[in-house]
Amino acid sequence: MAAAKKQIVILGGGFGGVYTARTLEKLLSREEADIVLVNRENYWVYQPMLPEVISGSIALMDVVSPIRRLCPHTNLVMRSVEDIDLKNKIVTVSPGFRPREKKIPYDYLVIALGEVTNFYGMPGMLENAMPFRTLADAIALRNHLIHVLEEADVEEDADLRRKLLTFVVGGGGFSGVEVIAELNNFVRTVQKNYMRLRNEQVRCVLVHSRARILPEMVDALASFAQKILEKRGVEIVLNDRLVAATSEKAILKSGVEIPCKTIISTVPSVGQPVLQKLECPKEKGSLLVNTALELKGYEGQVWALGDCAAIKTVSGKDVPPTAQHATREATTCAVNIVAAIRGGKQALFAFEGLGTLGSLGHGSAVAQILGMKISGVVAWILWRCIYLMKIPGLAPKLRISIDWFIHLLFPPDLAQTKVELESGIKNQHFEPGDIIFNQGDLGDSVYVIQQGDCDVLREVDGAQKVLATLHAGDYFGEMALLADLTRNATIQARTAMDILLIPKGDFNRLRKSVPAFGEVFDELAKKRSTPTTKS
Amino acid sequence: MAAAKKQIVILGGGFGGVYTARTLEKLLSREEADIVLVNRENYWVYQPMLPEVISGSIALMDVVSPIRRLCPHTNLVMRSVEDIDLKNKIVTVSPGFRPREKKIPYDYLVIALGEVTNFYGMPGMLENAMPFRTLADAIALRNHLIHVLEEADVEEDADLRRKLLTFVVGGGGFSGVEVIAELNNFVRTVQKNYMRLRNEQVRCVLVHSRARILPEMVDALASFAQKILEKRGVEIVLNDRLVAATSEKAILKSGVEIPCKTIISTVPSVGQPVLQKLECPKEKGSLLVNTALELKGYEGQVWALGDCAAIKTVSGKDVPPTAQHATREATTCAVNIVAAIRGGKQALFAFEGLGTLGSLGHGSAVAQILGMKISGVVAWILWRCIYLMKIPGLAPKLRISIDWFIHLLFPPDLAQTKVELESGIKNQHFEPGDIIFNQGDLGDSVYVIQQGDCDVLREVDGAQKVLATLHAGDYFGEMALLADLTRNATIQARTAMDILLIPKGDFNRLRKSVPAFGEVFDELAKKRSTPTTKS
Repeated sequence: MAAAKKQIVILGGGFGGVYTARTLEKLLSREEADIVLVNRENYWVYQPMLPEVISGSIALMDVVSPIRRLCPHTNLVMRSVEDIDLKNKIVTVSPGFRPREKKIPYDYLVIALGEVTNFYGMPGMLENAMPFRTLADAIALRNHLIHVLEEADVEEDADLRRKLLTFVVGGGGFSGVEVIAELNNFVRTVQKNYMRLRNEQVRCVLVHSRARILPEMVDALASFAQKILEKRGVEIVLNDRLVAATSEKAILKSGVEIPCKTIISTVPSVGQPVLQKLECPKEKGSLLVNTALELKGYEGQVWALGDCAAIKTVSGKDVPPTAQHATREATTCAVNIVAAIRGGKQALFAFEGLGTLGSLGHGSAVAQILGMKISGVVAWILWRCIYLMKIPGLAPKLRISIDWFIHLLFPPDLAQTKVELESGIKNQHFEPGDIIFNQGDLGDSVYVIQQGDCDVLREVDGAQKVLATLHAGDYFGEMALLADLTRNATIQARTAMDILLIPKGDFNRLRKSVPAFGEVFDELAKKRSTPTTKS
Repeated sequence: MAAAKKQIVILGGGFGGVYTARTLEKLLSREEADIVLVNRENYWVYQPMLPEVISGSIALMDVVSPIRRLCPHTNLVMRSVEDIDLKNKIVTVSPGFRPREKKIPYDYLVIALGEVTNFYGMPGMLENAMPFRTLADAIALRNHLIHVLEEADVEEDADLRRKLLTFVVGGGGFSGVEVIAELNNFVRTVQKNYMRLRNEQVRCVLVHSRARILPEMVDALASFAQKILEKRGVEIVLNDRLVAATSEKAILKSGVEIPCKTIISTVPSVGQPVLQKLECPKEKGSLLVNTALELKGYEGQVWALGDCAAIKTVSGKDVPPTAQHATREATTCAVNIVAAIRGGKQALFAFEGLGTLGSLGHGSAVAQILGMKISGVVAWILWRCIYLMKIPGLAPKLRISIDWFIHLLFPPDLAQTKVELESGIKNQHFEPGDIIFNQGDLGDSVYVIQQGDCDVLREVDGAQKVLATLHAGDYFGEMALLADLTRNATIQARTAMDILLIPKGDFNRLRKSVPAFGEVFDELAKKRSTPTTKS
C-alpha cells in the first residue's frame, strides 16, 4: 500500500531553494511527493555574474534562468511569503490578481529566503542608496547610470555635473569590489560616446569599513586587487563607512561628505521580515539549524539553508554565505527530506569550501583555490571557466559565451530601458543646510514635513531674507502647483529632515477627488499670498 | 569669412529624426552647424522587428541602438519636448534632475515626433489597453504576459484562469497581425513549462474593423495570412472593433464582451499633444508640408516628416507612415537643410515605395514587392534578409543573427523583469454589473467615485442584500484598510463608473501626514460601522 503523497514546500528561489528542488526532483518519484517552490520572481539569478550586467559584458537577460526550466516538475508560485505558521504547517503567500491570500499547507518545509538589505538607523539610505542583489536591482542601476550620464552631458551647472559623474559604492567585500570594478569600466568606456564628457570628470569611490578590502582573501591578493582598481581610477576610502545619504550626497562616519547622485550599498543585511517574526532559535537574526540543517525544535519537518540560516559544519566551523556552500547545503537538505519520507540515514553538512574567487573585470581577477594564490589574467580565465561550467543548462552557457565574445569586439550597449512613468508619493531625507527647492524652480511636488525644521527664504534686493520657519506637520510647495507658477521662495533645511513628497499628478488627482484634502492647501495658499507678495 | 555656425534642432528619435541627423552629419562639416536631437529615450527602436521581442526571437536589448552611436556628432538631449515656439525659434524641453525648464534655440528645426496612441472616447481603454510602439511597451507587455501565465498556473478559479489565458489585440494592420502572431507563438510555446496549463485553454483574438485583415495588401496575401493565423489558433473577429475595456474584459462595438486580462491596441493614433497646440496648417491633426517637406508658413526654417506629417509625393500621392518612406523623407529633409544653409537647389519628395512586407513569425510571411506577391517561407526569409540588411551597424546585425540562431535551438526566455514596486494612485473604469471587490477580499485600496453609481451588497442568510447605493464624490473601501480586516461587503457597479484608486501604502502615508485627509475617512468609517455590523 502506497503512503500518502507528501507536500514539500520550498521558500526562496536562490541557490539554496533551486538546488534543493532540483535534487529532490532527481531523488523522489512524482508519486512520492509534490514539490512547491515560492519565489517573488520566476527566475533564478546567477549571482556571481550579476555585476557583469553593469558593464554589459553579459546581457541583462542572460544572467538569469527560468525556475520552471531548472525545476520542471516543481510547482512554482510567483508570490511573496507573508507568513509561516510552523505550528499548523501552513505558509501564507501574497495575493495575485484577486485580493485573496493563498495558503499552502506543507508536510516538509525548506526555508531558503536569503537576506534583505537593511538601512535601519542610516537616515536617507532607504530613499537614496541602491541595493545590488536582484536582477531588478541591476536593471535599475544600469538605467540610473545611463540617466546620470545623459544628464551630465547636457548639464550647464558644473557642481551638478560633478555630482552626476560621482559614483559611491559602500562595502569592500567581493560584491562591492566587483560592482565598483564593473561600474568604473562601464562609465569610463561609454563616456566616450558623450560629446561633452571627459574621463577626468568621472569619480568612482569605494568605501570600506576595515583597513583593507576583500577581508575574505589573504593580504597579497587584496592589495593586488586594490592596486588594480586604483590604477583604473577607483578611489578607495578605508576605515570609514556610509552612515547617511540625501539625494545630493553620501555621508560617511568620519563626517566626510561626497556630493553625488549615485550610491550603491552592498553591505548591511538582515533576515526577511517574515523570518524575524518566526518563533524559533536564532543567531544574530539567522535561523539556527543543526548540522543536518534542521530548524531547532522542528527536526524532520523544517530545514533552513543559505544566507538566512546560521550553519556550522560537523567540524564546528561557521559556514559562509556563498553559492558554493548553498548548493552543497541544498544536497544535504534534499537527502534529509528523502530520509524523512522514506526513513534512512541523515546526511550531515561537512563541506569546508574549495576556495574564493573574485573578478575585477577587464581581464583581471584574484583567486585563492586549493591552497594556491593566483591573480591577474590567469585568475580571470579561471574565474570565467569555473563559473561558466557551474551554470546549469546548455542554453545559458552558450548565451553567456556569446555575450563575452561580442563584448570583446564591440562597445557595451547604452540603451536605457526605463519603463516607469511617474514616481508616486515618496519619502525623502535632507541634511541641515540642504536646499529642498530654489526660488524660480518649476513646481513639481508638494511637501509635508514629517520631522525637522526648514527656512523659507526669498531674495529681496539681492540678499536672502528668512520669511518663515516651518516645522513637523507643516506643508509647503503648494503655491506653485495651485497657480502653476515657478517657486516664489527657496526652502532650506535647518535640521535633518524627513519629508513626504506628493508629486504634481497625484496632488491634483487627490485635490479633485477628496475636497477636504484640497481645502487644506487652498486655505494655506490663500493665507500665504499676502498683498506684498507676488503670487 | 566664415558664416556664423548654425544650430539645427531635430525633435524625435525615430526613423525620421535619426536618419536626418545621420545624413546631416555626412553632408555638413562640424564647423557649419551644431546638430541637437531631442528624444525621450536615448535609443532608436528598430520598429519592424519590435514584435519579435514578444516571442523572444530577438532579445530585448538587441532591437534598439543607442542614438549616440548612430549619430556620434549629434548632441542628444534625453528629454521630452514640452513646447515649440515657431515665432521666436525656441524649443522648450522637460526638466532633468533640477526642476528647471531647458530652452533650446534653433536656426533650423526638424519635427519628427511621430504619433501617440489615442483612446479618447473609449472608456477604460487608457487604464486597461496596452499600446505597442516603444521598447518600454514591449517590455511591459512581455512582463505582463509572463505574469498572467504564472497566475493562471496557480489559480483555482476556472473563470479567472480563462480570463488570464485570453489575449485580445485590436487592429488588423501590419502591427496588429505581427503582434498577435508573435504573442500566440510565445504563449503556446512557453505554456508547456507550466505544469497545470494546456494549449486548449489559451485564447488569442484579433479584432479588426474591416471585412479582411491587412488592408495594405492584396486580397490573396491577406487571406493567406488569415488562414495561417487561424491554423495556429488565432481567432479573427472582423467588422468589429474595441470600444471600451475594464480590468476584466474587452468590449466590442457589436456589444460582444471578451473576458480577459490582456488587451493590446495597435490602432488609434493622434499627433503628440505638443503638436496639437502648434499654430500652423494641419490635415487631420498631421502637420501639412510641401513636397520639400517644409512646414507651410515656415519654409526654409522648419521641416516635418514621418508619422506626424501629412506628405504628398511630387506626383500627388499620399505618403504612408512606414519606415521605408521615413528614411527617404529624412534624406530629402537633410538635403534641403543643407540647401538652406549653403544655398542651392531643393530636393522634392518623389519616393513611391518599393512594396510591403509583413511577418507572421514562425517561418511565414507575406510580401508584395516590385509587383510580385510572395507568401510563406520564401517571404519570411526575404523579410529577415531585407530587414537585417537595413539595420545600421555591424554589432546589431551580428546580435540579431545570433538571436535568431539561438531561437531555432532553444525555447524562448521566460524571466519576468518587472522592476516596479507599487502601482500608485490610479484611475479605473467599471461597466454596469462589474464587481469592484468582494466581501472577504483583502483591503488593498481605498476608492473615490468620480462618475457613476454602485451598490453595497452584503450576504445575509445566504442572500445578497443591498445595504446602500453610492454616487459620484462618495468614498468606499476605507473600513478594511483602517481596521486591517477583509472587506465586509461586496461593491457592484450599477452604471458605468470611473473610480480613483488610492493604494493602501499611499493611503496610510497621506493619512499620517495630512490629518484632514485621514479625518474624512475616519469619520466615514465611524458612521458606517453600526452596532449591528461586525467591524
